[in-house]
Amino acid sequence: MIGIETLSTNRAHGGVQGVYRHQSSATATPMTFSVFVPDHAPGTTLPVMWFLSGLTCTHANVTEKGEYRQACAELGLIFVAPDTSPRGEGVADVPDYDFGQGAGFYVDATEAPWSAHFRMRSYIEQELPALIAAAFPADMTRQGITGHSMGGHGALTIGLRNPDRFRSVSAFAPIVAPSQVPWGQKALAGYLGDDPAAWRAHDAVALIEDGARVGELLVDQGDADSFLADQLRPQLLEAACHAAGIALTLRIQPGYDHSYYCISTFLADHLRWHAERLG
Amino acid sequence: MIGIETLSTNRAHGGVQGVYRHQSSATATPMTFSVFVPDHAPGTTLPVMWFLSGLTCTHANVTEKGEYRQACAELGLIFVAPDTSPRGEGVADVPDYDFGQGAGFYVDATEAPWSAHFRMRSYIEQELPALIAAAFPADMTRQGITGHSMGGHGALTIGLRNPDRFRSVSAFAPIVAPSQVPWGQKALAGYLGDDPAAWRAHDAVALIEDGARVGELLVDQGDADSFLADQLRPQLLEAACHAAGIALTLRIQPGYDHSYYCISTFLADHLRWHAERLG
Repeated sequence: MIGIETLSTNRAHGGVQGVYRHQSSATATPMTFSVFVPDHAPGTTLPVMWFLSGLTCTHANVTEKGEYRQACAELGLIFVAPDTSPRGEGVADVPDYDFGQGAGFYVDATEAPWSAHFRMRSYIEQELPALIAAAFPADMTRQGITGHSMGGHGALTIGLRNPDRFRSVSAFAPIVAPSQVPWGQKALAGYLGDDPAAWRAHDAVALIEDGARVGELLVDQGDADSFLADQLRPQLLEAACHAAGIALTLRIQPGYDHSYYCISTFLADHLRWHAERLG
Repeated sequence: MIGIETLSTNRAHGGVQGVYRHQSSATATPMTFSVFVPDHAPGTTLPVMWFLSGLTCTHANVTEKGEYRQACAELGLIFVAPDTSPRGEGVADVPDYDFGQGAGFYVDATEAPWSAHFRMRSYIEQELPALIAAAFPADMTRQGITGHSMGGHGALTIGLRNPDRFRSVSAFAPIVAPSQVPWGQKALAGYLGDDPAAWRAHDAVALIEDGARVGELLVDQGDADSFLADQLRPQLLEAACHAAGIALTLRIQPGYDHSYYCISTFLADHLRWHAERLG
């Protein structure tokens, strides 16, 4: 594939799990991502599911621990897992797990030094979809998006800003209102500056308050999630969706925590939900 | 649980995935293992599936990548994943990936310096089952065993030596005849000495030749496995089973390799096969 380096391919669950790298113009760094493609008839295309990962993650976490391939093979879904930030020696960073490399928050940074490479909004919304469309058997008229924690924030905000592109939007334990919680306030101030007005396009609750609309949303949230009360606060999304007339299905899962053990339990169910809506 | 330290528990697929550590008398080291217990009625017990891992692995590889929990929850199976060797600063080791720590080969070493700690046969056959029986809701009259590569060797040899204990035995890409392949010759000579007569109790094909019997075996083997021709050689097991009247189901899986992508694709199917036999 032109411009894409194949790092690995493995046959799995009746399809091919690949890991790829390319030179991103958005981030001006190499970027790694994974794609699972189920077996399909030659010349046909398949709907595309995007999975955006959370703080500290790369493409590898969900690729190894997500347990999505069997469902994708059954449903005929391509599954794309991008990285969560630019990385490398020439890329700005801090030692914090919740800011800098591994914590791109799916925004285009405007503040130095982050603005040089941290352009994950452009990467996820523009560059990587064009690459997927060109290099994989993808039907880009049928895309769904989901994600976990910071990636749930990414899925909700990107989905809300692009309702014509994503027919279905869901999330696992998302940061629903980054403007109102410590993780989000730190990241949005650091990448976008101190004026909270600039944050609203990157905050699902604020986007809904400002008029963004999707028909429905599916969110799973464990009640044993240690970040629930301070960082995630799904009741803020519930209130915003109620006021806006968005049909939110918020499932509080008893005993489940913030880990991939929760994601892997419910991801196949999300994929079925998306597949119904992607036709 | 007396004598067992709980390192983590996570709710997953309608059960609890735990990771535990205890001081092993067999290996004279701390040993870590994982156990998945599906939800079950109070006071009831569940059959036990053993998964023995391959070279370089700990309990964590299959725990994170195995995709077994949904099937275990559906079938009501406890799933136990031990480590592959003793570990730690006081334990003998070499830099090789295929000998020493991470490569216990499920034998009780007789050769110094390995004999001090490398007693994985006693650990898997005696000590850990007693601990599982005492600390988990396990029906030890209904046990099955499987494993991958070196762990497939472990599952086959332990199953063949203990047909009254294990009602069902399967393997993924097993080393079926360690006496005849480089990995096994190095390990068995290193742990047990140079006399191949001492190796036969740790070689599935030799055990069958010497009269060990089980009713049936299930083996999955990818045909894109880079170790197939030199280290695994399933046709040796096929010939031994044919001569002995053991019903071997050997499934050559086209395109699949030696990785967890193969294991995770077929592990649920193995679990269903075991569950049918465990009643």
